[in-house]
Amino acid sequence: MPVPGPGYSITVRVEAPPSTTAAGDLTSAIGRAGGVITAFDVVESYADRIVVDITCNTLSADHADDVTKVLETQPGVRVRKVSDRTFLVHLGGKIDVQSRVALTNRDDLSRAYTPGVARVCTAIAENPEDARRLTVKRNSVAVVTDGSAVLGLGNIGPEAALPVMEGKAALFRKFAGVNAWPVCLDTQDTEELIRAVELIAPVYGGINLEDIAAPRCFEIEERLRDKLDIPVFHDDQHGTAVVVLGALRNALRVVDKDIRDCRIVVCGVGAAGSAIIRLLQQKSPADIIAVDIDGIVHTGRADDDPNLSSIAASTNVDGRTGELSDAVRGADVFIGVSAPNLLAADDVAGMNDDAIVFALANPDPEVDPLEAQKHAKVVATGRSDYPNQINNVLAFPGVFRGLLDAHAHEITDDMMIAASNAIADVVDGERLNASFIVPSVFDSTVSPAVADAVKRVAIASKPAEPEAGGGTGLPWSMADDAEY
Amino acid sequence: MPVPGPGYSITVRVEAPPSTTAAGDLTSAIGRAGGVITAFDVVESYADRIVVDITCNTLSADHADDVTKVLETQPGVRVRKVSDRTFLVHLGGKIDVQSRVALTNRDDLSRAYTPGVARVCTAIAENPEDARRLTVKRNSVAVVTDGSAVLGLGNIGPEAALPVMEGKAALFRKFAGVNAWPVCLDTQDTEELIRAVELIAPVYGGINLEDIAAPRCFEIEERLRDKLDIPVFHDDQHGTAVVVLGALRNALRVVDKDIRDCRIVVCGVGAAGSAIIRLLQQKSPADIIAVDIDGIVHTGRADDDPNLSSIAASTNVDGRTGELSDAVRGADVFIGVSAPNLLAADDVAGMNDDAIVFALANPDPEVDPLEAQKHAKVVATGRSDYPNQINNVLAFPGVFRGLLDAHAHEITDDMMIAASNAIADVVDGERLNASFIVPSVFDSTVSPAVADAVKRVAIASKPAEPEAGGGTGLPWSMADDAEY
Repeated sequence: MPVPGPGYSITVRVEAPPSTTAAGDLTSAIGRAGGVITAFDVVESYADRIVVDITCNTLSADHADDVTKVLETQPGVRVRKVSDRTFLVHLGGKIDVQSRVALTNRDDLSRAYTPGVARVCTAIAENPEDARRLTVKRNSVAVVTDGSAVLGLGNIGPEAALPVMEGKAALFRKFAGVNAWPVCLDTQDTEELIRAVELIAPVYGGINLEDIAAPRCFEIEERLRDKLDIPVFHDDQHGTAVVVLGALRNALRVVDKDIRDCRIVVCGVGAAGSAIIRLLQQKSPADIIAVDIDGIVHTGRADDDPNLSSIAASTNVDGRTGELSDAVRGADVFIGVSAPNLLAADDVAGMNDDAIVFALANPDPEVDPLEAQKHAKVVATGRSDYPNQINNVLAFPGVFRGLLDAHAHEITDDMMIAASNAIADVVDGERLNASFIVPSVFDSTVSPAVADAVKRVAIASKPAEPEAGGGTGLPWSMADDAEY
Repeated sequence: MPVPGPGYSITVRVEAPPSTTAAGDLTSAIGRAGGVITAFDVVESYADRIVVDITCNTLSADHADDVTKVLETQPGVRVRKVSDRTFLVHLGGKIDVQSRVALTNRDDLSRAYTPGVARVCTAIAENPEDARRLTVKRNSVAVVTDGSAVLGLGNIGPEAALPVMEGKAALFRKFAGVNAWPVCLDTQDTEELIRAVELIAPVYGGINLEDIAAPRCFEIEERLRDKLDIPVFHDDQHGTAVVVLGALRNALRVVDKDIRDCRIVVCGVGAAGSAIIRLLQQKSPADIIAVDIDGIVHTGRADDDPNLSSIAASTNVDGRTGELSDAVRGADVFIGVSAPNLLAADDVAGMNDDAIVFALANPDPEVDPLEAQKHAKVVATGRSDYPNQINNVLAFPGVFRGLLDAHAHEITDDMMIAASNAIADVVDGERLNASFIVPSVFDSTVSPAVADAVKRVAIASKPAEPEAGGGTGLPWSMADDAEY
């Protein structure tokens, strides 16, 4: 059921005979090969030939090859060059470091650099908290990975992970004005990774861990939270959990159920599943049943993994055992963050009335969403081509905007719940329905709402800061950045 | 002899009586206190008072306090607020991360982020060299410090060093379009620092070490050069050496001497002095005499430090001993990268005819440049308020621009000499004279000239690269970035 998309868009430059039917022949050849043309530009036209740039969406890299080959078999047609628009977008990287200060003359230089900068350094040496006002730390987040669990690609290493981290950084800027910088670490040793993040931390106001394999990611996050005085947030865990919790809040509104009466099945207990379970527990559902590749998680399984043991101990109050299909029977909510096609339509049919199904495996969900819709009241996926896309972009930019603005030293469950509520509440009562439980990723009101919610909780939970601007030798005050 | 400068510029908001002489009283009070007014703005005017913003340059933080206090003693005057323009420039940091790609709609998102980005990741996993084309590595340099030797401030640590690194990053962008990102490491252990730089290296096309104390800096640079496949350049060493060598080339043109006939005294054998000596040796001067706090460096001194021993072994052919004044007697060139006021005017008088004096200690040179000028033909300093400012800004932006454009894996002495020649040659024969041996730091032709020179040498010295664009499954080519 996949359709050719812009992720596999190519531009093919071809020479063709100048016949009146040439354009039509080319476009119909591409159509027969399954490509979808999005642009057709004649670049040059001569008596004996025309040169055309044809841009079309394809299904995959192999399909793009097939489309190109079909063109080559047309009589008189020569393919000159194939350019891949996705690769073109990436040429030279997707982010830049820009200067925020004028450096046009000596006065500028003597303020932003030597000799003036020495006084700013001295001020921070005397009062380190001033780094959160006078430096890029004020607005910067490290996007840290070891490249061990990148998208669905697995362990591809730090350099190959970089395009994802840059994309994330671009999203941070676009949706929340945050400076995010990729930190792709050339190690997969837990101790080295933790130490490296500690060492680079002075420059950042927050750490966003990304695409680090479970179960290593749990220990890394936990220990960094202990060591650092800035918030540490593993997006694969908590970003997903925040959006899922917000979407669930609205889905429950649609079906008019209280979470405290719901039995919730979470399929997949890696980074995302574990964090979803922990955040859900803050809302006291009737029960949570965790399911992994070995079936229902229960205390009798004697799992070695401390993460699994802790989940077993805190879920499944009735001590159920069995397979996924046993778990979902009679359940109110299914949340899948696992693998394609684990759930049959019949399983969904066996859930409680007004069932809620979040099938978030990407790109292929746990259950065909069209099939699920026949039996469930609300269906969501991770895909952009179905209603109700659960996308972390709804959470992480606003979460860090709020943390940075609050000069927060940590992130708490309360802040994450506030963020999930803010995402849910962007969808007001009039718009809320079974096909619209989360706002669009392009809804520009989401990130400010999330930021505001997080900032409020962060400030409320923080001890009063020491007075700003101390130790600079001048009676200036920087308590309120905006004043200057 | 210091004058109030923009590095210590304050804006004082005062309430004053609405008398006709109020403005004059305020300005003359500031003048008496030694402040230099650069702006006087009436902000509000009422029947009983006026509110004025007075901006003035001062000598120091203490002097700014004094100026403020003098205003407070004026009859009827109340100081409301003092803001320090240098601090204002720093609020929120001096650099930003920006997105280079559009993220306006789903097509954009599916190319720059998921799902399209996965193909770019795969391409890099298959051919790691593609990271230098398809990611920010193409154009990025880490500005790495441990905060152990920041400006003249000494060991102030990584957070307090951040404003300097950000300033450097802003200069990288301004003068060479390079993405430079501050990496302020929270360790001063040599092994940890080396390992941390290794771990972060995948994101960068080059490493600029900065303000790391000697002698640790030598080992750190040397070992990182061995370990990494990207150029490593300690600016305090090589940036200074490149500009000094360029300035010396032109100074020798002015006095019409050949470096092979010159005896050169280098005073100070820390990071800068050692690198200057090593680069000078590539040009075969008649002799180099190194001088440190213990006097002339010679093989009989039995220095423990391997850096000093190696300098002793390769300089001072006649085995001279004694003090700085002994070293400079009869010398052709004095290069000081040491401490204020070590050299007397009489010492300069005792140098060879047409002496060249580079007194680069900052802010106070080894010899008063006005005194030195009486006896030397060419005098240069590190200061912007005398002719011939030796400033690293002339070197590092163009050097890294050239290295990045060449996809260089290392930096060699030949590249540094090419850079120094390029800096020198920007000053053409018509403009060259004893007061103009180096171009202005704001001369926009310097960085491209340096970049071009470095790139040429880098490409000439590099083994041929494997063909680009392999392994993407499409016949696109990225050998020439510009083509796309």
